Amino acid sequence: MYIRSEVDGYVGILTLCHTEKRNALSRALVGELLEAMDAMAAARVRVLILTAGVGSKVWSAGHDIHELPLGEDPLLYSDPLEQLLRGVRHFPAPVIAMVSGSVWGGATDLVLSCDIAIGDDTCSFALTPVNLGLPYNTAGTLNFMRRLPLNIAKEMLFTARSVSPHEAEEWHILNHRVDASELRAFTLDIAHGIASKAPLAVAALKEQFRMLADSAPLQPGIFERIQELRHRVFKSRDYVEGIDAFKEKRAPVFRGE
Amino acid sequence: MYIRSEVDGYVGILTLCHTEKRNALSRALVGELLEAMDAMAAARVRVLILTAGVGSKVWSAGHDIHELPLGEDPLLYSDPLEQLLRGVRHFPAPVIAMVSGSVWGGATDLVLSCDIAIGDDTCSFALTPVNLGLPYNTAGTLNFMRRLPLNIAKEMLFTARSVSPHEAEEWHILNHRVDASELRAFTLDIAHGIASKAPLAVAALKEQFRMLADSAPLQPGIFERIQELRHRVFKSRDYVEGIDAFKEKRAPVFRGE
Amino acid sequence: MYIRSEVDGYVGILTLCHTEKRNALSRALVGELLEAMDAMAAARVRVLILTAGVGSKVWSAGHDIHELPLGEDPLLYSDPLEQLLRGVRHFPAPVIAMVSGSVWGGATDLVLSCDIAIGDDTCSFALTPVNLGLPYNTAGTLNFMRRLPLNIAKEMLFTARSVSPHEAEEWHILNHRVDASELRAFTLDIAHGIASKAPLAVAALKEQFRMLADSAPLQPGIFERIQELRHRVFKSRDYVEGIDAFKEKRAPVFRGE
Amino acid sequence: MYIRSEVDGYVGILTLCHTEKRNALSRALVGELLEAMDAMAAARVRVLILTAGVGSKVWSAGHDIHELPLGEDPLLYSDPLEQLLRGVRHFPAPVIAMVSGSVWGGATDLVLSCDIAIGDDTCSFALTPVNLGLPYNTAGTLNFMRRLPLNIAKEMLFTARSVSPHEAEEWHILNHRVDASELRAFTLDIAHGIASKAPLAVAALKEQFRMLADSAPLQPGIFERIQELRHRVFKSRDYVEGIDAFKEKRAPVFRGE
Amino acid sequence: MYIRSEVDGYVGILTLCHTEKRNALSRALVGELLEAMDAMAAARVRVLILTAGVGSKVWSAGHDIHELPLGEDPLLYSDPLEQLLRGVRHFPAPVIAMVSGSVWGGATDLVLSCDIAIGDDTCSFALTPVNLGLPYNTAGTLNFMRRLPLNIAKEMLFTARSVSPHEAEEWHILNHRVDASELRAFTLDIAHGIASKAPLAVAALKEQFRMLADSAPLQPGIFERIQELRHRVFKSRDYVEGIDAFKEKRAPVFRGE
Amino acid sequence: MYIRSEVDGYVGILTLCHTEKRNALSRALVGELLEAMDAMAAARVRVLILTAGVGSKVWSAGHDIHELPLGEDPLLYSDPLEQLLRGVRHFPAPVIAMVSGSVWGGATDLVLSCDIAIGDDTCSFALTPVNLGLPYNTAGTLNFMRRLPLNIAKEMLFTARSVSPHEAEEWHILNHRVDASELRAFTLDIAHGIASKAPLAVAALKEQFRMLADSAPLQPGIFERIQELRHRVFKSRDYVEGIDAFKEKRAPVFRGE
Ligand code: NI
Ligand code: NI
Ligand code: NI
Repeated sequence: MYIRSEVDGYVGILTLCHTEKRNALSRALVGELLEAMDAMAAARVRVLILTAGVGSKVWSAGHDIHELPLGEDPLLYSDPLEQLLRGVRHFPAPVIAMVSGSVWGGATDLVLSCDIAIGDDTCSFALTPVNLGLPYNTAGTLNFMRRLPLNIAKEMLFTARSVSPHEAEEWHILNHRVDASELRAFTLDIAHGIASKAPLAVAALKEQFRMLADSAPLQPGIFERIQELRHRVFKSRDYVEGIDAFKEKRAPVFRGE
Repeated sequence: MYIRSEVDGYVGILTLCHTEKRNALSRALVGELLEAMDAMAAARVRVLILTAGVGSKVWSAGHDIHELPLGEDPLLYSDPLEQLLRGVRHFPAPVIAMVSGSVWGGATDLVLSCDIAIGDDTCSFALTPVNLGLPYNTAGTLNFMRRLPLNIAKEMLFTARSVSPHEAEEWHILNHRVDASELRAFTLDIAHGIASKAPLAVAALKEQFRMLADSAPLQPGIFERIQELRHRVFKSRDYVEGIDAFKEKRAPVFRGE
Repeated sequence: MYIRSEVDGYVGILTLCHTEKRNALSRALVGELLEAMDAMAAARVRVLILTAGVGSKVWSAGHDIHELPLGEDPLLYSDPLEQLLRGVRHFPAPVIAMVSGSVWGGATDLVLSCDIAIGDDTCSFALTPVNLGLPYNTAGTLNFMRRLPLNIAKEMLFTARSVSPHEAEEWHILNHRVDASELRAFTLDIAHGIASKAPLAVAALKEQFRMLADSAPLQPGIFERIQELRHRVFKSRDYVEGIDAFKEKRAPVFRGE
Repeated sequence: MYIRSEVDGYVGILTLCHTEKRNALSRALVGELLEAMDAMAAARVRVLILTAGVGSKVWSAGHDIHELPLGEDPLLYSDPLEQLLRGVRHFPAPVIAMVSGSVWGGATDLVLSCDIAIGDDTCSFALTPVNLGLPYNTAGTLNFMRRLPLNIAKEMLFTARSVSPHEAEEWHILNHRVDASELRAFTLDIAHGIASKAPLAVAALKEQFRMLADSAPLQPGIFERIQELRHRVFKSRDYVEGIDAFKEKRAPVFRGE
Repeated sequence: MYIRSEVDGYVGILTLCHTEKRNALSRALVGELLEAMDAMAAARVRVLILTAGVGSKVWSAGHDIHELPLGEDPLLYSDPLEQLLRGVRHFPAPVIAMVSGSVWGGATDLVLSCDIAIGDDTCSFALTPVNLGLPYNTAGTLNFMRRLPLNIAKEMLFTARSVSPHEAEEWHILNHRVDASELRAFTLDIAHGIASKAPLAVAALKEQFRMLADSAPLQPGIFERIQELRHRVFKSRDYVEGIDAFKEKRAPVFRGE
Repeated sequence: MYIRSEVDGYVGILTLCHTEKRNALSRALVGELLEAMDAMAAARVRVLILTAGVGSKVWSAGHDIHELPLGEDPLLYSDPLEQLLRGVRHFPAPVIAMVSGSVWGGATDLVLSCDIAIGDDTCSFALTPVNLGLPYNTAGTLNFMRRLPLNIAKEMLFTARSVSPHEAEEWHILNHRVDASELRAFTLDIAHGIASKAPLAVAALKEQFRMLADSAPLQPGIFERIQELRHRVFKSRDYVEGIDAFKEKRAPVFRGE
């Protein structure tokens, strides 16, 4: 069992608890999480909190690298992480990310897909595809453009470096940064506040935000060029090198090929 | 008379002064305000300041709840507030919101529709449709998405809580936060600065910003789903409860129906 | 020679050094800069730094006013500055603006077109077309809307005032503000960090960002109205007055005609 | 039972047979039809033929006028006809309309939503909302624009007149016009031809066509103006008059109010 | 007086009668026509017929070549023909073009902007900007793409040849081609048919068609490249040659410069 | 040598003459054709005719099936046919397809990408991906939607059947159908007509048409779903079966897997 589930009044809380794998978003964990979310939706919670618990060292390590295919598009529409991101955005009530500890790769995409994010002074965020040579997809890139100042999104993706809690607040990754000792109470307070409001109006607003934010029309030619670019990346030797180096716990040597 | 009108060189100043109704944006007040704006445009002012005066306790309480229809779409294209928001955006010169005191509901939409906003340490901002169970419309939701970081817009709308002057500055609601004692001088200084610049170029820039910001193409199917969602909200029992509770000055009890 | 060129590992550095003309983006300087960028691309640098050197008083003064045509659209697609902005955005690796000193007019558009911007405590930024009565174009206005909070973009353009380093950081013009003594080391550190990552993945991300950011579909009618508005501005007497006043080093007197 | 269901190899045939109500698209008939379509999809037919049988006098009379609400939007997203049109377009295999007899109102929208249409010399088509004063919706108007030459779509909607089989062929309503005696054999021949092709490729093409055809991005402001216009129509006295006249089988007298 | 005005019940008829200038769409004629249209709108006609009378040799010769500016964009948003085209499309009731005789250049754009077109066996249509070397604008090109099969629009514009009544019918320029002796009666019959329908519903449909047809979002970069292309054409020697040759009634000699 | 090249005044003629391979659009033939087109552009022809000669039995057989990859996307942006289609659309003067004989698969996409198409009574057109189980791409599907009535595009793609010259004319595949004996003279006559017009204006119009026609903005989510759908098709057993059956000259047996 990778997920712990609680309900407090109209507020649901799902806690990632697969600590030995640093909550990597594996097919198994995502499957369980989506089921737990379905149960929460069925129970008609009015707010959902997604967390790894106060004091966790790693909120989530992102993609399970061992599940990434080589020589194939690693981020198809049906990929588990993609399903999870859509699951959060389509969840029929607000989802709040409550964050202690470090957040890596696809997990940062997950936090940025939650409606609201609240962190403590131990949290940090990194977007890491360039560590592996993995071609990030359009859905993710658009998510970063919607959620972050454009130059910040680029810095995070081009450097893969870890962003501090202070930066996370300045750059609007976090709505609020609070002391670890207050994180749970502060988050629950916001959640219960939302839960006391008119639920149909809240849900209609969330759905409007989602539909409007998804409306970023692209030229067909652009998409086909992006697909070609990404194809070249996931067929490259550097992608193999990136995955190998990760598994062998050494620094990769990239050649741009 | 709900509006006081002054001209200082090329700068017009319109002051909301219907304090006993807390400057609620009633049909009557909006009508008078739109007329005053027409007069300002005819006088070819180069900047317009919109204010409730330094030291006001309430800048504006937003919609006049007593005018909201039940069981009908409360925010049609022809609604007075919608007309006012378009009036501000189409005004042929920059409009600066100068804010002391609290700003509620549709009035926050109004401040966010002004080109520039300057506030003092008494100002606060809330977006309150979920207090009533009122389905906010696409025009407003898009305005919040254009003007606020996405997670902040969601927090404000889902919680309806009042945002402090400090937060208002961090989240780009305000261009500047200054001491109440300097608010008028600081704002006039910026206004006179703009008035000394090439007016046709300023007006063409404002109009470009407006036209470009209005360009957020949506799929037809999306709009019809939004309309259906909103329809369900304004036909709900919770909407009646929200309006009733407001009139009876008690907390509403929402059931999600 | 207006440009100095260095390579440090995979990092290219181009330094504007036409100080007597305050690095105005004249046809000649832009031509040389584009050639130097082509050479950098051919050398397959993985990051490009664009700078006027640490300690410069003026990073760049923007358009060479003496080259602006009168009575014609001054910002056609083939204008040198427009070519430079496209050159930076299409450069096949990240471009970092490293900024000491003041940045004016079109040069601010250039910094905002770089992928990342890092400045010291002497830097400042102004957008100055309303000083001249020059009608800024859609490409630029969209760039400001993508890179700045909307109300900030308007304030900068309507007032033409100089923005301080602190504001530049708050408003996401700068990714980082550091002490002048550390500017070069800090910037190189970020650049070398990027250069150690998978270059195809970095380049594909940059190109995705560019293509997605360029996707801001407009109604045809809107464009034709903008073109008409701009036409009226570049045919106006105020535009002639603006250019004359600049050349005569006096304050312009605008009449809105 | 309003629907007769047959399967011939990989080809499904659904026949509307509620002749006493002229196959009006009532809530009941649509419900049954959608169920029959689900069964066909479950049986993995590769083509679906939708017909009222060869020799029928009326293929379908369109909306059941008795079910249209007064003073409310009669064509919300959840309206049965709207559900049926989406059902046809989302059906996982091509749908062929095989038409004898007259087709009215919403039923013409249905034929135009099928992938292919084949008729005999008795068929005719009319689009009749202006007979009632009913405000047609955006989804339908866009469907007519996609399927008909623009001037033809307007003539059909503005005049509500019946279009002959010859015109229906010239104007691309019909793919083919054949003799009544050959209608069934000709249609089955095309259907079996499709059924012999690669089904996944056919289904992916249909889905591509649907997704691409649904992509007609509109400005948000446009939607809200359309909704206001339609609101005025369904609240008008003429709409009441249109419905009354229809029920009383007399010509309506419209006043434009 | 260039326009004759009649009203027949709810049907207005405007007849171009400046035969000595072959109804060229000069500033004067367009001004008078727009005024007559305003009067018709004020009289609340339910259909408007635009004609040059049955039996006219030239329906309209299009732009008045003598009014075209040299070295400037000849088709700005405020150009009289552009105003007329918008006037027809915004007219609050359907506009029917009733056509005898030849239609040239901008006048073909006008007929294609009417909602319905009916012609007799003497009518013909040509799109002639390439005879002059005049750069047609985006609004017109989009209109041709909406109203004509794409390959036909290209043939008409690239060859400038006159299209026969038979072709005009096949290619959906005309809704109907009828004998000259029946043209007026046939057209009036359709007009009176429309006038008997619910006027608010008809007007809302026309406005929906207009708004939806105007929604053809383009990338900003595309616009600026089009404007550059057109700029090169209206600054070319060939444009001067085209206008000269026309005035001197000789064939132009174009050099592609 | 697969291509024969002629110049007649300002008109270029390129003739496919690889008859033993039925002018299949192999990598080799496309490479030669693109080179010949570059030479024609350099020679500044004002019109280009693309033909297989009058009296050819097969104009072109489309893709060279032997070059299609298995288990990979067969229609990437860099595919030779895709390059050719873009080459025709970007050619700086009108391209006329002059057609005798049958046109298959990708070659029909090519004819539909030419600006104008003229055929004789021997021509026929088929779109054949469903014979192979090959997932057609978005660029092609959009081209068919732009060039054909929607129901006709679907029939052609779902049935893969051969369309007769009469149908090709009715459905606007052909601009003109003429007798084989007149095909060359008729086509040259149109070509020389175009060549006598202002070339810059013609080229600017073609480029406008291309840019406007390419502007069909799609939601990002749509693209990713299309890519997933196509992925499933090119990974399917049916695709292998389709290619095998073709090579073994037998009818394929598809299972929908
Ligand atoms: Ni910010
Ligand atoms: Ni015909
Ligand atoms: Ni047609």
